Amino acid sequence: MDHQARLISLQGVLNQNRLDALLVSHLPNVRYLCGFTGSAGALLLTEKAAVFFTDGRYTTQARAEVRGARVVITRKASLAAAAEWIASRPGRVVSKGRCRLGVEGQYLSLEDCLQLASTVGSDFRVRPAPALVEEARTIKDSEEIERIRAAAVLAGSLFERILKVLRRGTTEAEVAAEVEYAARTAGAEGMSFSTIIVSGERSALPHGRPGNNPIQSNGFVVCDFGVILSGYCSDRTRTVYVGRPTREARRVYQAVREAQQAAIESVRPGRTAGEVDRVARKVLQGHGLGKYFTHSTGHGVGLEIHEAPRIAAGQSEVLQSGMVITVEPGVYLPGKWGVRIEDMVLVTEQGREVLAPSSTELIAV
Amino acid sequence: MDHQARLISLQGVLNQNRLDALLVSHLPNVRYLCGFTGSAGALLLTEKAAVFFTDGRYTTQARAEVRGARVVITRKASLAAAAEWIASRPGRVVSKGRCRLGVEGQYLSLEDCLQLASTVGSDFRVRPAPALVEEARTIKDSEEIERIRAAAVLAGSLFERILKVLRRGTTEAEVAAEVEYAARTAGAEGMSFSTIIVSGERSALPHGRPGNNPIQSNGFVVCDFGVILSGYCSDRTRTVYVGRPTREARRVYQAVREAQQAAIESVRPGRTAGEVDRVARKVLQGHGLGKYFTHSTGHGVGLEIHEAPRIAAGQSEVLQSGMVITVEPGVYLPGKWGVRIEDMVLVTEQGREVLAPSSTELIAV
Repeated sequence: MDHQARLISLQGVLNQNRLDALLVSHLPNVRYLCGFTGSAGALLLTEKAAVFFTDGRYTTQARAEVRGARVVITRKASLAAAAEWIASRPGRVVSKGRCRLGVEGQYLSLEDCLQLASTVGSDFRVRPAPALVEEARTIKDSEEIERIRAAAVLAGSLFERILKVLRRGTTEAEVAAEVEYAARTAGAEGMSFSTIIVSGERSALPHGRPGNNPIQSNGFVVCDFGVILSGYCSDRTRTVYVGRPTREARRVYQAVREAQQAAIESVRPGRTAGEVDRVARKVLQGHGLGKYFTHSTGHGVGLEIHEAPRIAAGQSEVLQSGMVITVEPGVYLPGKWGVRIEDMVLVTEQGREVLAPSSTELIAV
Repeated sequence: MDHQARLISLQGVLNQNRLDALLVSHLPNVRYLCGFTGSAGALLLTEKAAVFFTDGRYTTQARAEVRGARVVITRKASLAAAAEWIASRPGRVVSKGRCRLGVEGQYLSLEDCLQLASTVGSDFRVRPAPALVEEARTIKDSEEIERIRAAAVLAGSLFERILKVLRRGTTEAEVAAEVEYAARTAGAEGMSFSTIIVSGERSALPHGRPGNNPIQSNGFVVCDFGVILSGYCSDRTRTVYVGRPTREARRVYQAVREAQQAAIESVRPGRTAGEVDRVARKVLQGHGLGKYFTHSTGHGVGLEIHEAPRIAAGQSEVLQSGMVITVEPGVYLPGKWGVRIEDMVLVTEQGREVLAPSSTELIAV
C-alpha cells in the first residue's frame, strides 16, 4: 500500500477538478489515502499539504498508522477541528481569491456541510467534489488483490463449515453462529456484513436475517456471507437444498447457475457494468424468471463490502483490469423460496479470474 | 410498539415545527415510526398522510411489517422514488403555497439532498428538520425497555462465557469468537457493534480491535461487547486482569469503579447529561487520572448502539424517566494498559435502575 503515492496522485488532480482543497471524511477513503484504520478522522488535502485530524482516543494509533499526512490531535470532532483549522489558516489552504473546498457529497451529511460552510466562512466555497477517491479505489493494486483473495479464500472455507452443520432441524441462527465463529478463529477481523442464512419461504427475502426457526425439509437455504481480513472484504453466496430437490427447484437453480456463469464469462476490460448485468438478466428472462430477479447483478468490493462499480441495469461504467466485483444473480419466488449464487471476480487484462473458485453445482443435504 | 401512535404524535407536531412534510430516511427512525426492519426505505409524512417507499427486494417484508403507512414498492432508490412521488402530487403534500419539506440533516447526504431538491422543484423548500424522531426515541416505552433489558441480560451472560475462555495464551480474536458464538446461539440477531477484546498495551486503545496476538500476563484486558435482540441493542464493558494485579493496577481499577458508581448514582430525572459526565470526571480527577479519561461518559442506547442523549461534558439535555444510557468511564495509560467499566442504566421516576446488574469487582484470571 503506497499511501504516499495515492495522496500525491490525488493532490495532482485537484486543480483539474477545480478544487483548491478536498476534505475527506468517509473513513474507508481516509484509510485508503493515509492508512488510518480508526473510527473517527478527517483528512484535508491541498495541492501541497495533507493534514489528518483525529481525537484523543486515537493518538497512539494515528501516529503509528498515518503515512504522508501531518497528524493533528484535537479535542473536537474531526470535521469541526478541520473546519477550524481551515478557517484560522486560510493562507495555507489557498494563496489568493476564494477557495474552492471540495467535500464528499455522497457521505457528508447536510448538517455537517452547513456547519462546515458556516465555520470556514465566506472566503471558501464549499461544494460536492467528484468521487475521486472512490474512482481510484475501484482499481486495486497487487497488495489489495492479495488481501481480497485471502478474504475470498477464507469465505470459501466457511462454506465447507456450513455444509458440516446445515441440516434439517438446525436453526438459521446456529448456522450463522458457526460461520462467524469459524471466521473469527481463522483470523477474520469481523464479518464484512451481517451473515445471511435464510431457509424455506424466508429464502425468498433477498436480505433476510437468520432466525431462530429450525430449517425445514424441502426448500432452499440461501447462505450469503463474507469476512474482513486485513481491512478487505469478501462476499460469497451459495444456496443449498434441504431434502430431495423437486423438478422446479432443480430448474430454477440451474437457471441461476447458468445466469451467473454467463455473466462471469462476460466480464472483461472494456465491457460496461450494465452489459454484465444484462447478460445475467437475459439468461433468466430466457427461462421465464426475469421478473423474479429483483436486485442488481453485483457491486465492487474492497475496503467496503459495497463500493464502485455498481453492476446494474444501465450502468455505463467501463470495467478495467484490477477491478474486483461480485456476480450474484438470484431468483426469488415469493411464498416459496429463493436461490442466489455469488462469486467475486477480478477483472484481468486477459478477461477475468474468479477469486477462490469453488463448485456451484446443486448440493442437497 | 404502537407505531400508529408514534406516527400520529409526530404528524401532530409537524406544523409547530414549521414543516408541511417530513421525509424520514434514517433506517432506525423509519423502523421506530412504522415497523419496517429492512435495509432500504423512506417514509414521507404530512399532517394527514404517511407513505412508505421501498424496492422490490422488500415487497413481502414491507407488507408484513409496515403499520400506519401506505406501502409503495418502487424500482428506484427509495429516496428518489419518494422525491418523484412528491413532485408529481404536490397537492397531496400541501394544499397551497410553498411546501416546507423537512429532511434529516444529520443523516441525509449533501448529494441526496441536492438531488431531492432538484427533483421536487421550486414549489418545495427543502430544509433540515429538528431531530424530532431522535428526541421521541430517547424515551423508551415498556416494550422497548423489556427488549433492551433482555439484550442486557444476554450481554451479562456473555461475560460469564468470557471468563471461561480468557486466559494467558488465548488470543483476543478467540475470545471475541467465543462471545459472538455464544451470542448467536443464544438468539442474538447480531452484535450491536464490533466486539472489543484488547489486552496489554492495546487495552490503552479505547477502540482497539481484537487481534491474533496471545494475551500476555500482567496486564488488563478490556472486554466491550453487546448484542442486538429483537432489534434493540445492549452495551457492556468489563475489564479483567491477567496475572496478579500490581498495586497501580488495583488503584486505577478502583478509581474507575468508583467513578462509574458515582456517575450511576447521580442519574435521575432532572439531572443533565453533562452533570453525570462531570461526576465521573471529577472522581478520576480526584485520583489524578482525569487526563487519562479521554472519551465521554456514555450515550443513549436503543434501536442504535449510539443514540441520544450524549452523556458528555457540557451537554445540557435533561435526563427523563424512560431514557436508557450507558455509564462507561475509562482510564487509558498509553504504552501500559487501560481500564473501562460500563453498564446500561434506565432512568426511572425514582432515580435509576442498572439493567442486568452484575459485580464490577476486580477479577484476576
